[in-house]
Amino acid sequence: MAETIAIDETNRLISSDKVDGTTVYDRQGEKLGSVRNFMVDKRSGKAEYAVLQFGGIFGIGSEYYPLPWDMLTYDTNLGGYVVEISKERLEAAPRYEERAEPEYDHIYGRQVYGYWGVPYPFV
Amino acid sequence: MAETIAIDETNRLISSDKVDGTTVYDRQGEKLGSVRNFMVDKRSGKAEYAVLQFGGIFGIGSEYYPLPWDMLTYDTNLGGYVVEISKERLEAAPRYEERAEPEYDHIYGRQVYGYWGVPYPFV
Repeated sequence: MAETIAIDETNRLISSDKVDGTTVYDRQGEKLGSVRNFMVDKRSGKAEYAVLQFGGIFGIGSEYYPLPWDMLTYDTNLGGYVVEISKERLEAAPRYEERAEPEYDHIYGRQVYGYWGVPYPFV
Repeated sequence: MAETIAIDETNRLISSDKVDGTTVYDRQGEKLGSVRNFMVDKRSGKAEYAVLQFGGIFGIGSEYYPLPWDMLTYDTNLGGYVVEISKERLEAAPRYEERAEPEYDHIYGRQVYGYWGVPYPFV
């Protein structure tokens, strides 16, 4: 097992395939959802946002919430990410349904980052 | 299909789960291997290196090559990444076998980046 963990995660780094599917909790340790995937700038390699999957059963009826990467904090005790947001705040957040994604351009990016009060650092 | 592509990739961004498993070619369009996963700095969100899977059948006997992220260029025509390295150069490169990963610390990082002649920008 130790070897498997080694490639998945170090103190500083985490594997892409370990991020995907990881549970996301609020500050009270209540489960909000999970990370569906995250979007990376092809040139710079910078993760721009994580897509949080929230609601639905077996993926049916799920909604997807783009969150600025910097809002996610990995908690080794919980074995998942913690975000400092309430469920109420999440419920009013930018989101989309399966197969109804918006074009994720800078305009949309600014909307998402703006909603969460995070400065949009990309151009 | 268009909707599926939209969330996977934009002009600027690519989804984490689209990177994993993507074929890697050399400059002549010859297949070198595929991306097994990539390692992301938890705090900054910066992809530090991709792990290229090379050799082996059905994953048995495969070897894993950490490559600086910046060496990978996505080619939309090929539908995969292109790296400017020869098979010979790859064969002498830092690598490890399944379940024999090194601790990926800054010392190892500098070795990997150094072998490929890429400045190591982390600390």
